Formats: sequence, structure tokens, C-alpha cells
Amino acid sequence: MSTKLIIDTDTGSDDAVALVLAYTDPRVEVLATTVVSGNVPLALGLQNALYTAELCGSTAPVYAGADRPLLREAVYAQDVHGADGMGDIGLPLTGRVPAPGHAADVLIDLAHRHPGEITLVTLGPLTNLALALRKDPEIAGLFDRVVMMAGAGDHIGNIKPTAEFNIYVDPEAADIVYTSGLPLEMVGWDVSRKDATLTEAENTALTELGPLGVFCADIQRQLIVFCREVTKVDGIDFPDPVTMAYAIDPTLATEAIDAYVRVETTGTHTLGMTIVDRLGVLGEQPNTRVVLAADHDRFVAMLREACSRPVG
Amino acid sequence: MSTKLIIDTDTGSDDAVALVLAYTDPRVEVLATTVVSGNVPLALGLQNALYTAELCGSTAPVYAGADRPLLREAVYAQDVHGADGMGDIGLPLTGRVPAPGHAADVLIDLAHRHPGEITLVTLGPLTNLALALRKDPEIAGLFDRVVMMAGAGDHIGNIKPTAEFNIYVDPEAADIVYTSGLPLEMVGWDVSRKDATLTEAENTALTELGPLGVFCADIQRQLIVFCREVTKVDGIDFPDPVTMAYAIDPTLATEAIDAYVRVETTGTHTLGMTIVDRLGVLGEQPNTRVVLAADHDRFVAMLREACSRPVG
Amino acid sequence: MSTKLIIDTDTGSDDAVALVLAYTDPRVEVLATTVVSGNVPLALGLQNALYTAELCGSTAPVYAGADRPLLREAVYAQDVHGADGMGDIGLPLTGRVPAPGHAADVLIDLAHRHPGEITLVTLGPLTNLALALRKDPEIAGLFDRVVMMAGAGDHIGNIKPTAEFNIYVDPEAADIVYTSGLPLEMVGWDVSRKDATLTEAENTALTELGPLGVFCADIQRQLIVFCREVTKVDGIDFPDPVTMAYAIDPTLATEAIDAYVRVETTGTHTLGMTIVDRLGVLGEQPNTRVVLAADHDRFVAMLREACSRPVG
Amino acid sequence: MSTKLIIDTDTGSDDAVALVLAYTDPRVEVLATTVVSGNVPLALGLQNALYTAELCGSTAPVYAGADRPLLREAVYAQDVHGADGMGDIGLPLTGRVPAPGHAADVLIDLAHRHPGEITLVTLGPLTNLALALRKDPEIAGLFDRVVMMAGAGDHIGNIKPTAEFNIYVDPEAADIVYTSGLPLEMVGWDVSRKDATLTEAENTALTELGPLGVFCADIQRQLIVFCREVTKVDGIDFPDPVTMAYAIDPTLATEAIDAYVRVETTGTHTLGMTIVDRLGVLGEQPNTRVVLAADHDRFVAMLREACSRPVG
Repeated sequence: MSTKLIIDTDTGSDDAVALVLAYTDPRVEVLATTVVSGNVPLALGLQNALYTAELCGSTAPVYAGADRPLLREAVYAQDVHGADGMGDIGLPLTGRVPAPGHAADVLIDLAHRHPGEITLVTLGPLTNLALALRKDPEIAGLFDRVVMMAGAGDHIGNIKPTAEFNIYVDPEAADIVYTSGLPLEMVGWDVSRKDATLTEAENTALTELGPLGVFCADIQRQLIVFCREVTKVDGIDFPDPVTMAYAIDPTLATEAIDAYVRVETTGTHTLGMTIVDRLGVLGEQPNTRVVLAADHDRFVAMLREACSRPVG
Repeated sequence: MSTKLIIDTDTGSDDAVALVLAYTDPRVEVLATTVVSGNVPLALGLQNALYTAELCGSTAPVYAGADRPLLREAVYAQDVHGADGMGDIGLPLTGRVPAPGHAADVLIDLAHRHPGEITLVTLGPLTNLALALRKDPEIAGLFDRVVMMAGAGDHIGNIKPTAEFNIYVDPEAADIVYTSGLPLEMVGWDVSRKDATLTEAENTALTELGPLGVFCADIQRQLIVFCREVTKVDGIDFPDPVTMAYAIDPTLATEAIDAYVRVETTGTHTLGMTIVDRLGVLGEQPNTRVVLAADHDRFVAMLREACSRPVG
Repeated sequence: MSTKLIIDTDTGSDDAVALVLAYTDPRVEVLATTVVSGNVPLALGLQNALYTAELCGSTAPVYAGADRPLLREAVYAQDVHGADGMGDIGLPLTGRVPAPGHAADVLIDLAHRHPGEITLVTLGPLTNLALALRKDPEIAGLFDRVVMMAGAGDHIGNIKPTAEFNIYVDPEAADIVYTSGLPLEMVGWDVSRKDATLTEAENTALTELGPLGVFCADIQRQLIVFCREVTKVDGIDFPDPVTMAYAIDPTLATEAIDAYVRVETTGTHTLGMTIVDRLGVLGEQPNTRVVLAADHDRFVAMLREACSRPVG
Repeated sequence: MSTKLIIDTDTGSDDAVALVLAYTDPRVEVLATTVVSGNVPLALGLQNALYTAELCGSTAPVYAGADRPLLREAVYAQDVHGADGMGDIGLPLTGRVPAPGHAADVLIDLAHRHPGEITLVTLGPLTNLALALRKDPEIAGLFDRVVMMAGAGDHIGNIKPTAEFNIYVDPEAADIVYTSGLPLEMVGWDVSRKDATLTEAENTALTELGPLGVFCADIQRQLIVFCREVTKVDGIDFPDPVTMAYAIDPTLATEAIDAYVRVETTGTHTLGMTIVDRLGVLGEQPNTRVVLAADHDRFVAMLREACSRPVG
């Protein structure tokens, strides 16, 4: 039986790879893709998700969600992913139309329609999920898994010294999610940095696998520059794809702990940090499964397999 | 032509008086009443609003909204309004059923259906309106007026030294509203304390005017105790009724300024305060009409007139 | 018997007038003047205090104190008082040498030497007093009065909507002082704005009274511009002089309350605000006598009398 | 030539071991020991330091410093170190008298007397050093090294999920120190937890080395319980001794980086955390040498050697 997936995404160039993984995997049934402001403004993210779905032949509806964080001004990552979020390689990213309805309502409706069956995978700021939780708190008990590309299990961030982008952009939404009672699983940026990095050569090698490989590799053009110059990663790291890979196949995780995790919403230097109580100092019940390491080789294999599949 | 009103309320004993003012006023057409967690838990507030509507013969639908603040734990004011929010005088406050749909969606739908025509009157925490703004930012341009019982124009609060209850309970929602661009008008607790206070004798005198007078006076039983012992007001003060009276008839205001107002969401001692830039120190454009005084006698007259009307 | 005074000052143009009031008043014995960073950098404030003492023939020693706030970057008010803090009228403000020793140690030493006898008057940020309290907490019980030009009893500020300059510049020091147990008396900026404002004509009239009158009036050259353009005060307001006048003669106050006052050290919009619990919402014991009004005519009379005295 | 040391300590049971290391090491000349509130109230810490100095035959003066943090209520660690801070083993910890003068003034005086020559080792909250810096900012340029047992290089804390005790107790003082320009070297709790842990057997073995070994081992009686039950360290960890050992012999460090480090003073979940910008995300100049690992065996050897020396 296939895994029912909802994907909540701020579609930039690594989200798109994660979408390819999900849209093409025979073990997965994507019920809906919901888009949120994050890597790029909402309108761009929508086009990117719609383009990717079309490329993969996915018929799952794509919905628009929040066009800004709950409280704060939007922060984008177009320095990371390109002005269009897809590496500025000239893709025709206009004119596609999302399905009617708001992402938060879609989450609520599908959760009630398939209680206990859905794996929600979040690849961006948690605004849509937070809005849904506040409109209908009951949904906290209706998902099977909520797998998030979020935070950093080792407290080392990519946008601030200890804050990861998705949480930093909307820390209040993240606080709502982390205190909601949802069955959370978190793949932090540390896993990406350490176990989901492809060298430029490995990225280029994807292009030999087929049109999806060409797509996945080429849209990283700006990310390659960013990783080289800013995060100093050797190659490019793939936080959203490794999260999706883990969502599809949890055995990809080679180290994980259950911990009490909170989000900092007020710190001067720590705003948007995920605090993982590694030693249990607070004595609180764990609220999150924190993945700390993943199998790099199996991840790359999954990625290459997806890139080898035919386009839709 | 009558004024189209939506009333957003956390129905406690003074909200109920405001509802009587609106439901019975011939100049007003109430399109909907939406309820939010505040003075009492949502379920109680719903019953209180539904009971009051029924008593007044209002056929406007009553909708449920947020059952808690955006980010924080709920804070109630049952010490002020009674365990049932209606003075614990034994009213049959059970069994009535709200209309289907969520308050935030009702605000969005009606705003689009009657662009530029609706006066929204908020009598509780601003959670419903904040959720609506985040789901559909366009509504910021679709209301005629948004009149709020909120904050304190003189920076003197009732739940904290400088914070008023409705803002304190959900400061993040209030921050969203105050920075939204909505055409805000604020009747703070100062107006209530100074210009909308009835002596106990004046309150008792309402009972001679008819069944609505009996209702309005009797449900203040717990408020009378609270004002005497805690806020040290001589008599009882009526923040929501004076706000509603001003919403219906803006000439009730005897002093008002346009000012830049913000909400404190992080202060140690000032959380939930409305900061009114009285001297324009920040040089920002005003975002709120701040009512600073109201005509006490005309307010009491409006109240007595409403209490004299026949029940539904 | 004369009142023993220590004056802690960030000597700008209105501090200087306060110094003239104290140095020349026969009822007052100034034991020491201590200087702190505030209106102007410490080195300038020292020169201004030393110049004023010399002009008045004061032999009380002048000491240097903190050259910056406890935690934060220094903020100056040279837009208010001129680049030299004394109206930039060409006074020879160089070359004078303070007495050896640090202001905080002077406060500690004199407090122990004259237990229960000293009135400390603070005209600037409270850094020196905070350092003294942390070095020797015992001094909290050794002053007769601590009269501060600080905060705003009506929650209307001059540097931020609700923050007054002296507190805003070093809120952490102020927090230490307000929670210290010292016998605090606070003359806020509201008293200055409402009851200690001179029209430009009244200021000019001081010049006819003698050389001290010329000095006091002329050094306000920049303040006049600032009040006209920024605070919109009609004339110039004299927060430090009215505070000193009240310290010398407490009957100058026409309205005062004892209240619990705290300082906001973390607010986004309220940093540096003095929160006066006007209605006793917190149920805390008062820690401060808050002067809310002063006798304008008697203040001006005291000022004119001081300006009439002969120079040293 | 011997290293001139000043030791600033909140003398609990592991500080005492660090003092034994310093007082008995022939390579070290201790100029002064200054005491601060931290593990235990100031008066107890003074007695503990004085007792230890006497036991070791040290003639260096011991001075009292701050009896509380800069802004916050004192927090003690008597659950870790015993009610007397020395394991409650019955030592006669009363009646000894510190040298006259305040710790902050001692730091200032000695820094000026031996410019560029002194290694300051801090084993407790940084209140004394912060007060000294605010009284005399010049001292930031007068120390050779400032070696601190402070924070956590891996962002894992012992009193909060990400905060270490010494910083948590006085984060504002720590913020002053970390932004002071002093030549900082930080040995965080991570180094202690990973590389300076003795099994109970290793601790007991110290008793065979002589009277100082008996002293160092026996006063850990309460620490042993605490490590077993709370921090879940296998044995006992020695943060202050490993810091002192590194101060005496920097080659003990096996891994260290230069990084920009800040202290969180406002976070809801991160108050008192040292943020180490491991990846240089902020692009700031490093302000601290962060020791990340130490040679466990050499540390134990230094400790055993010290424990073998004769008492004073």
C-alpha cells in the first residue's frame, strides 16, 4: 500500500528535487502539494511547484497558502536559489494556475478525510501548518507522521549562527507546530550538511540519468555558487531531498533521538533556533524525533533512481 | 440606510450589553456575530452570544472562531464576568448551536461580498481577525471601519499596569491587526473607566426599563464585585458597550486623535501594551483613530434606550 | 541646617542650570558632583560641570564616572544640547581637571561617611549609581533621599513614544536602581513638559538678572531649536532644573503619588520605559514617590532668584 | 619565568581543585584570588577560597567581590556542590578574613601594575570582571590572557538545554566581557564533559597521593551524586580544574578554534547561552579562542601531580 503524502513547500531548487523524489516514487501517493512563502515569494513558489508537478506528470493538486510569515516580514533566500528560485536557468515559470482553496484548509480537510493515514512533509516555513492548527486544533491528532526539514539537531545554523532558514523565517509558526502535539520528525540542516552533500561532480553526473536528472542538476546553478561562497560546503547540500527521502523510507536515518525541542521566538542572537534538549535537562517529555544522521550512499542512490525515471 | 455590522466578541457580561445595543438598534444591520476565546472559553462565549441573540430576536448567524490565542496559552476573565461569563445568575446557557463555518472565513467572505460597506466591531482578543488577515491579506482594504475595544489610550491597563485585557491575551494577533493597514478605530479601557462607568444605582435603574434592561443589569453581578474590589472603579465600567455605541454613532466621541499605535509583544513588564505615539516621536504615519473621551450622558441615554426596547 | 547634596549629572545645558540652582542656593551644601555619560560623552560632561562649578564659585569636587551605559552602546543627545552640550555658544570648555577617584566610589564613600544625611540628585542615566549599588549594596540604606530626573509619570516619552532619555540610555542601570530599596523620588519628563516650560521670552528675560542669568539663558540656544522642531514644546522645558528645585524644596510638588515603578529592559517598542502602576494592578509595595505636577510659578521664581545671584 | 595569575572564583568543590592546581604549581605566581557569587553565596565562597589557600600554603591575598549578578537574582548550585559548596564533609569553613578591597578594584589595580603580563582565570560568573571593565575600560588592553570556564562550545548546557551555569547566572556580565576586546579563551562545559571526567574510582585514587589528594577527592561527595543523577555523566566532571590546567599549560588543548562568540541575554529558551558562530555566518571577527577538546590523560596527570604535592 502506498504512503499518502501531503507536501508543504516553499519551492526553491532543492524543494524541486524533493518533489521529483515524491512525485515519481511508486511507493507514494501525493494527495496535495501546498505552497508557502519562504525561499521565494508565494507566487514564484507556486509556479515552481506547478512546473515540477507538470514535468513529473503528477496530477495531485497544488494549492496556494500563506504569502508571508505569521508575524514577521517575509525573508527570502533568492541569494541561495536564484531570483526565480530555480537557479535562473531560463525555465518557463509562468502562467500555471493552482487549484482553488487555501493550503491551511486543504490540510484540515485532508486530515479529516484520511485520519491517521497521512504523512505530511514540510519543506519550508511552517506558516500553513500553524494556521491550520489554529483554525482546527483537532488536526494535531489526525496525521500519521509530520516530517519536517527544519532546524538543526546540532545547533549550527545556516542563516544565523544557530538558526536554520525555515524556522528563522517564521519562528512563531514553528513554535505553534512544536507545541502542538503533532507526531513530529525533524531532519535538521546538520543532516543535510553532513550526509546529504553532493560534490559538483556528483551533481553533474545526475544529468546523464535522464531528463529529470538534467532538471534536478541544472536548477542548482545558483546553489552551487552559494554553497561555495557562503556556507563553505564542499559541493551542494540537499536538505529538502534528504528529508523527503527519509519521509519515504525512514530506514535512511542512521542516528535519531527522541527529544524535547522548542523554538526561540525572542532571543537577540538566537531567534529562530531549534533548542534540542539533548541531555534532558528540562525533564520534559520528548515531542520530536530528531534525525541526527542519514545514510549518504543510500540517499544518493534514491536520488539517482528518481532522476532516472521517465518524465510525465 | 442601515450600517452593516459584523461583531467579533468573546461574549462576557459587558459584551452581551454591547450585543443588545447592536441587535436592537434600527440603524444597524448585523450580518454576523463571530466568537473568540477571551473573557471565557470559546464554548461558553458561543452560548452567551447565541442566548443574547435569541433574547433580542436577532436572526444574524453566530459563528465559532479561534479557541485560543495565536501563540500563547489562553487567559480568561471569569473573575471579572463570572464562571459562565454572564454573572452566574442562572441563565440557561446551553444547547444552542452556532452556524457552520469558521469566524475567520466568515470575515473573509463577508468582506469580499460587501466591499467597503462593513463596520467590524471587535470586543475581544483579535485572534479571529488576525487569522483572517493571514489567510487573505486583501481584506485589509475591504472594510469601511474596524472599531475595536482594545488597549488604553492613556497607557493605563486593567490586567497589567499598562496592558488592557483584550490586547494582553493575544498580543501577537493585535500586532498583526495594528500593522495590517485596516482602517482602525480604538476605544481603549481609559474611555470606559472615565466616561462609561455606571454607578450601581444607575445599573439597577436599567431593570425598570424592560426585560432587556433586567438582562443587562443582572448579568453584571460578578462585574460589580470585581470593579469594587480590584479596579476600584466606582460602579461598573462598560468598555464593550461604549465601543459599540461609538461604532453605531461616532459622534459619541468627544476627543479623538489619529496616532501611530503599536503593540508590545516582548516586554518583561509591558507585554500586551498598546503604545500610542502621542507626540509623534517616531515620525510614523498614524494607523489608528484613538478615541480618548466619550459623552457619558449620551452613552447612558443610548444604553437606556436599548434596554427599553422589546425583546425579540 | 543645610541639605547635603550629591549631584550626579550628564552635564548638558539644562543640567548646567540645575547646577547653578544647587551651587548658589544657601540652603544647600554640595558635597560632590559626579559625572556620567549621557547627554554628551563623559569628557565633555566633565568639562561642562567643571566650568559651571567654577562660574558659580563652587569648591565641591567634580568626579568622573562611567563613560558608557552598563550594557548598551552610548546614546547622546547632542542634537538637543549642542555638540559641546552647552548650546555651542563658544564657552571655553577645555582643560579643567576633575578630582581623582571614580564616581561610584565617591557615592559609596560619602554615603558611609554621612549615613542618612545625603540627598542624591541624579540628572542623567543611572549608571554611576547602579555601579555603586553593585559594588556596595549597603548604600541602599544610607541615603536620605534619592531624587531623580527620570522617566515619565504619564508614560509619554521624549526619545521613544513611552521612554524618557535618561532611562532609555541605560535601562539596565535604571532597573538596578528601581529595585534597590533606595528611597526614590522621581520627577519625570511629564512634569518638565507641563510645569517647567519657559517661553523663549521668559528664557531671554533671565539674561537681565545678572551673569548667571546670561549663562543659563544663552546655553539653551540649541535646546530652543530642538523643542520647537522635535518635541513641539512651546518654549523650552527644563527637566533637570525642576528636579533640582524640587530636591531643594519638596513643597514645589503640587501632585505626587507613591507607586510601584519598574523599568522595561526588553520591550520591542517600550525599551527604557518607566512603568508606573497607577492603579496598583500588581499589588506590589510602592518603591518610588512619583511627582506628577509642580508649581510652575514658584519654579520660575526659584530659577530667577538663582540667576540673580552673583557669580563666584 | 613564572606565569602571573589572578584567579576569579565562585569557590565550590571543583573550583577548589583548580585552586590547588594553581597554588601548588611551581610555574605559577598567583597575584590574587578574587571571589564572586555563583556556586555558593559570596560569604561561603570566600571561606572556601581562604581555606583552600591556607591548606596549600598560598600567601596570595583573597578578596571579596560581587555578592550578586549585575541585574538578576542570584542563582546558586548548592545542589551540585553541597550546602557549603565543599561537599558538606565537615570542613571548618568559618572565621577566615579576606583582604580589604573589592575584587573589581583589585583587577583594575593589578592590570595597571603588570600590563600585558597577567593571565586572568575566571571560574565563576563574570560579574567581577564586568564591573571592573565598566569602571575602567582600559583594562581590556592590559591582560595577557583571559581564560574562562564558561559556556559550551557545542551549545549543550548543564543548567538549561543550551546554557552553562557560569554564563546563565550572569548573562549580562558575560555579554560585557565577550564584547570587551579582552583576549578571551573559553573552556566550555563540553570540554569538561568529554575530556575532564574522572570515574569515581579515579577520583578515589587521588586520596592515595597525599593530603591534597584527599582534600580534592573528598569535597566532591555531593558532586558525585549530582553527576550520577542529573547530568548523567559517568563519574564526575571537572570544568574548573581542566580550565586551570589549560591556563597553566595551553598545550593541553587538542582542538581549538577562533570564533565570534556572543551571549544571549533575552531568549525565552536560550537565556545565558554562548552562541559560537562555528561557520562564520555573521562574518564577524573572532573574539574568542574556543577550546573544543583537551588531552584527558595529560589533564589527569597534572591533577595527580598537584594532588601529590605537600600541603603548605
